[in-house]
Amino acid sequence: MRIVVTNCNTTQEMTEEIVRGARAAAGPGTTVTGLTPAWGPESAEGWLDSYLSAAAVLDTLRTCDEPYDAVVMAGFGEHGREGARELLDVPVVDITEAAAHLACLLGRRYGVVTTLERSCGQIEDSLETAGVGRNCAGVVGTGLGVLELHDTDRTVRAFVDAARRVRDAGAEVLVLGCAGMTGLQQVVAEKVGVPVVDGVGAAVKLAEALVGLGLETSRAGTYAKPPAKQRVWGRGGGGSA
Amino acid sequence: MRIVVTNCNTTQEMTEEIVRGARAAAGPGTTVTGLTPAWGPESAEGWLDSYLSAAAVLDTLRTCDEPYDAVVMAGFGEHGREGARELLDVPVVDITEAAAHLACLLGRRYGVVTTLERSCGQIEDSLETAGVGRNCAGVVGTGLGVLELHDTDRTVRAFVDAARRVRDAGAEVLVLGCAGMTGLQQVVAEKVGVPVVDGVGAAVKLAEALVGLGLETSRAGTYAKPPAKQRVWGRGGGGSA
Amino acid sequence: MRIVVTNCNTTQEMTEEIVRGARAAAGPGTTVTGLTPAWGPESAEGWLDSYLSAAAVLDTLRTCDEPYDAVVMAGFGEHGREGARELLDVPVVDITEAAAHLACLLGRRYGVVTTLERSCGQIEDSLETAGVGRNCAGVVGTGLGVLELHDTDRTVRAFVDAARRVRDAGAEVLVLGCAGMTGLQQVVAEKVGVPVVDGVGAAVKLAEALVGLGLETSRAGTYAKPPAKQRVWGRGGGGSA
Amino acid sequence: MRIVVTNCNTTQEMTEEIVRGARAAAGPGTTVTGLTPAWGPESAEGWLDSYLSAAAVLDTLRTCDEPYDAVVMAGFGEHGREGARELLDVPVVDITEAAAHLACLLGRRYGVVTTLERSCGQIEDSLETAGVGRNCAGVVGTGLGVLELHDTDRTVRAFVDAARRVRDAGAEVLVLGCAGMTGLQQVVAEKVGVPVVDGVGAAVKLAEALVGLGLETSRAGTYAKPPAKQRVWGRGGGGSA
Amino acid sequence: MRIVVTNCNTTQEMTEEIVRGARAAAGPGTTVTGLTPAWGPESAEGWLDSYLSAAAVLDTLRTCDEPYDAVVMAGFGEHGREGARELLDVPVVDITEAAAHLACLLGRRYGVVTTLERSCGQIEDSLETAGVGRNCAGVVGTGLGVLELHDTDRTVRAFVDAARRVRDAGAEVLVLGCAGMTGLQQVVAEKVGVPVVDGVGAAVKLAEALVGLGLETSRAGTYAKPPAKQRVWGRGGGGSA
Amino acid sequence: MRIVVTNCNTTQEMTEEIVRGARAAAGPGTTVTGLTPAWGPESAEGWLDSYLSAAAVLDTLRTCDEPYDAVVMAGFGEHGREGARELLDVPVVDITEAAAHLACLLGRRYGVVTTLERSCGQIEDSLETAGVGRNCAGVVGTGLGVLELHDTDRTVRAFVDAARRVRDAGAEVLVLGCAGMTGLQQVVAEKVGVPVVDGVGAAVKLAEALVGLGLETSRAGTYAKPPAKQRVWGRGGGGSA
Repeated sequence: MRIVVTNCNTTQEMTEEIVRGARAAAGPGTTVTGLTPAWGPESAEGWLDSYLSAAAVLDTLRTCDEPYDAVVMAGFGEHGREGARELLDVPVVDITEAAAHLACLLGRRYGVVTTLERSCGQIEDSLETAGVGRNCAGVVGTGLGVLELHDTDRTVRAFVDAARRVRDAGAEVLVLGCAGMTGLQQVVAEKVGVPVVDGVGAAVKLAEALVGLGLETSRAGTYAKPPAKQRVWGRGGGGSA
Repeated sequence: MRIVVTNCNTTQEMTEEIVRGARAAAGPGTTVTGLTPAWGPESAEGWLDSYLSAAAVLDTLRTCDEPYDAVVMAGFGEHGREGARELLDVPVVDITEAAAHLACLLGRRYGVVTTLERSCGQIEDSLETAGVGRNCAGVVGTGLGVLELHDTDRTVRAFVDAARRVRDAGAEVLVLGCAGMTGLQQVVAEKVGVPVVDGVGAAVKLAEALVGLGLETSRAGTYAKPPAKQRVWGRGGGGSA
Repeated sequence: MRIVVTNCNTTQEMTEEIVRGARAAAGPGTTVTGLTPAWGPESAEGWLDSYLSAAAVLDTLRTCDEPYDAVVMAGFGEHGREGARELLDVPVVDITEAAAHLACLLGRRYGVVTTLERSCGQIEDSLETAGVGRNCAGVVGTGLGVLELHDTDRTVRAFVDAARRVRDAGAEVLVLGCAGMTGLQQVVAEKVGVPVVDGVGAAVKLAEALVGLGLETSRAGTYAKPPAKQRVWGRGGGGSA
Repeated sequence: MRIVVTNCNTTQEMTEEIVRGARAAAGPGTTVTGLTPAWGPESAEGWLDSYLSAAAVLDTLRTCDEPYDAVVMAGFGEHGREGARELLDVPVVDITEAAAHLACLLGRRYGVVTTLERSCGQIEDSLETAGVGRNCAGVVGTGLGVLELHDTDRTVRAFVDAARRVRDAGAEVLVLGCAGMTGLQQVVAEKVGVPVVDGVGAAVKLAEALVGLGLETSRAGTYAKPPAKQRVWGRGGGGSA
Repeated sequence: MRIVVTNCNTTQEMTEEIVRGARAAAGPGTTVTGLTPAWGPESAEGWLDSYLSAAAVLDTLRTCDEPYDAVVMAGFGEHGREGARELLDVPVVDITEAAAHLACLLGRRYGVVTTLERSCGQIEDSLETAGVGRNCAGVVGTGLGVLELHDTDRTVRAFVDAARRVRDAGAEVLVLGCAGMTGLQQVVAEKVGVPVVDGVGAAVKLAEALVGLGLETSRAGTYAKPPAKQRVWGRGGGGSA
Repeated sequence: MRIVVTNCNTTQEMTEEIVRGARAAAGPGTTVTGLTPAWGPESAEGWLDSYLSAAAVLDTLRTCDEPYDAVVMAGFGEHGREGARELLDVPVVDITEAAAHLACLLGRRYGVVTTLERSCGQIEDSLETAGVGRNCAGVVGTGLGVLELHDTDRTVRAFVDAARRVRDAGAEVLVLGCAGMTGLQQVVAEKVGVPVVDGVGAAVKLAEALVGLGLETSRAGTYAKPPAKQRVWGRGGGGSA
């Protein structure tokens, strides 16, 4: 099974990190390829970045030539998943919803710890429309930007601090609220004493599940195939899809 | 007061029609300028188009040189409004939410009649996250594509047919669910016997209200000014914002 | 355009203050007239006052001879708006909902700061049934009675203190939770650093919007014209409407 | 135990009918007294009537000299219960909420069949704020006005017809949606084959329960004792409470 | 009227205490009989105990030979009520929902104070599905196990401490969150200054109300009579019901 | 990886069928063992059966000697999953929630088609408390009992008929609402033209995902280890756990 994992930003190092996280989760027969958008934001933090990222990632998927069986979209709280479902004939799993789906199986309420506070609202909306907001006890920020996460010690400390707030609000399970945090789930889980779900790994597993069961996105209604029409992807860009 | 109205697609004729609708609603001291994105879909119908449109419209606003006091985003159910709020220092009003806000003042439940059925889900999500989904009795489609709306008689007939379904679900007020329907509100209202709100006009009035009261988008939390960083707007595009 | 603004209590000074607030918001072609109910409570604080006020205000509107184009009901959280919609042929805007509608356009969550804690529940219910409760982060009291608001310095201090609580609960925009606070929006906004919406001004603008767009209350369903019948308005009162 | 039952309108015959219904439900040690407001609407159908009724009923309770242990407010969907809770030192039960509370114990979803369609919205709001809206499958009208209910055969036929609609929506229990229907519960239940709850009887039983358990309305928060102030109850009326 | 009260656990002393509480609430013509399950947990604290208790209590009811008119299920938050409604021809009232129904009549929001924190989630779910979760401000634990409640002074102190938390969350009425707390309502109410509802007494009163009004569980839909089939009740058990 | 799949009833043939469905979904390194409860109902249809089943399945798990890495509970809408999470040290996945989790990834709204109408309410509650009810468009019955499902042609016809109703309500994906339907997903999907999720396969995949990622049930809060105490499992049964 071939899974493509799309980074939501143009930072190649982050794609590599995400791919490492995805591969660590992938089953024996699964190959993981990372896709870095050719355009978009260097990191996605807030609504403007998220909408720019959505278009860039969709353009990247639209023009990806290599065959694959499923897509994992690795932008926590970032937009675009429904567009990818329309566009593609293979299952699409977003790491935001993926983490929540698994977290719901491990505790009665889960909480998300993300980067900047400004991203919390987006994540809440993303969980809500994905249908998994009901058991979310809260989404909190660490105050760290996406590109500051490379300092692991600092990230872990900030995560543990912020985790206290969602724990107090009732969270029994935690979710790493940024693709750039992938790989920290175990060290953080040990420190906070509750299970911690990494969205990248969760999405890989859910993508494997869907492909393994032969399930595909419904074409009835919302995610019907987009009609052919003129679409221009960016200033200098062109083509239609 | 100068209001910029952004079309969500690249079809210039539609921009002109939207501008006509906006001017018909604008107060005496208001000037209306239409902006057609330089890229994006030729019509926005579904999630893929919506996300492409969001980035294109944000890019258009980002690079618009002329000064203005408020923005009206004329894509019914299209994404992007929160990004524009982050980006700009002036009030931003989306026609989807605008129509719903006014409709809530005219009846206990409102309904939306839009173009293709595939767009209904997006509109529902847009109303929900805007905070005005509670009194929405339903969103229904006419089966007409955006570029088919120029046939007014057919559009009116399809609208009236579809309206029956949301009326049965409890709607006491109707909303024109596409910017391309602007101008039809009166003829439709006469035929269905309930008030019909046009989002374009509603958004112009709400933008005038916000500017008139000196109100600006909050910078506390979600819509904080985006940090400066590298952002590439499309394949050939460049620049940062 | 002629807008009638109804005070929810019998205190003439408050009517004058509300009219001042309304006129400050009104557009050039709008005239504002204040109506003080001939009966009812001297200030509306709690459910008993609110229900008494509702009947008194409806009676005042019912017997108002002068022509007008829209009504603004200036009781924050007070009952009656749906009755006025049934009764009258012109648009009716309540300051509670009005403030919330505009606040939703300025931030992802808004909060209300009102007078006594006892009024918070009423306001919550009013926002909920108006269809704009979803994005309300909280309603908090200052501990000040309606008739204590004339001491502006004290009111501002109490408002700023209480505002902290809704800010902590996620409010990015604040609403003045009493008609008697009208005029304080700017000074308070400067102190708390977020936009502050005054319901009186907001309702005037929304009334202007509805009238400007030629929109009227729906007569289909809930707000159908009341049937003629015997109605006695108060102990010594009489007449039918 | 002395229970006062307030009619929501000025029609004495209806008070008598309600009192009959209340007495049929009352336990051996309970005496029931009916109160007809001295003013208000001759029948309550819609928001205008409801708000007028609320003030009139509160005035009636305020000026009632005889001692009593609990109040039953017999206006289905009519406003005022929270005001009575503030005003009085004895438990207050509204027939709308009472019917719903008992209906929840008899089936997973209940439905309400009321008089005119225009009243449905009010009833929905009343159930929602009372905290028992969650398991309501629907509120439907029979098309009969309150004063038309004296024709029992016609009322039963209309009720049975309307009941089908809420049954289809999932209702397993029905509620008589008007005090004027009291006494019909058995004949209707036989015809539709599900339990039918009469709000008047339900409220009497709940009032007896509260008094029997020594429970009183909370004074902490919302229903705190109203402050003494000038309140004028109607045009010619006077006094403060 | 004969009411059977089922304990949710096998501790005979607790049955006796519950029966005392039930009799204190019962009307003059009501006899109360306690049933202790022959199997199940010695105290119900958490999901495992609750599910075990549900089956044991249903088995006890199924094999109870003496006639009765209603059942009160005295396990706060424990499962099983819907099964008893299917099984029996008499009304069934669970103390969890009963307390909430009455609490809703006494204040705008209520709170529950229970034993161990681990039980809070179950109680929240129980209130939600019973249709009375909307006005619940919170469920909090005292940290005391069910079998520790016999130390009344300690229980009262722990209750008062915990009550502060739900009061802060908006509760205006409190509910004793364990059958084993029955009898403490008055002493606790005096200490916290708000009404306190005991579920055992509340359920007795609601059972009396239903029987008094001749109301029975609906057989339409969810609570239809269970089909005859082979059912084995426990390891050594047998029989079908 | 060793997965134990528990049947919710005592019918051995159904266990075998479920095991076949589970094995068809399981990955190469996964072994599946079926467990048939030694007691309980011969088929679970309704609340009484569900609660009996819950205790019997928990008893079966409690006394299962062989080691395993995860549990799949194969009762659609049946109770007990939270108890198993408390009891066991390995992940527990219920087929109801599992099907919904995957269905949410394939369409914007999903619908469930189950056996008897009487089971619909239970399933709705199960989805709601699992946190995945938000995107459920409806749960409908086929009118077939669990033990009638062996007639595949009839089941498929009844499923397709019932599916129309949830499709009309907006479902874009369907869920097989009974473990006994496992294996029918493909034939049904072809007939109705939308993806159909089998809960048994879905749960196996989710269990594999959790184990593969090293995730365990949270012990913080709701699913804390049950305290040691006396618990008797059925009439003749004994032991404590």
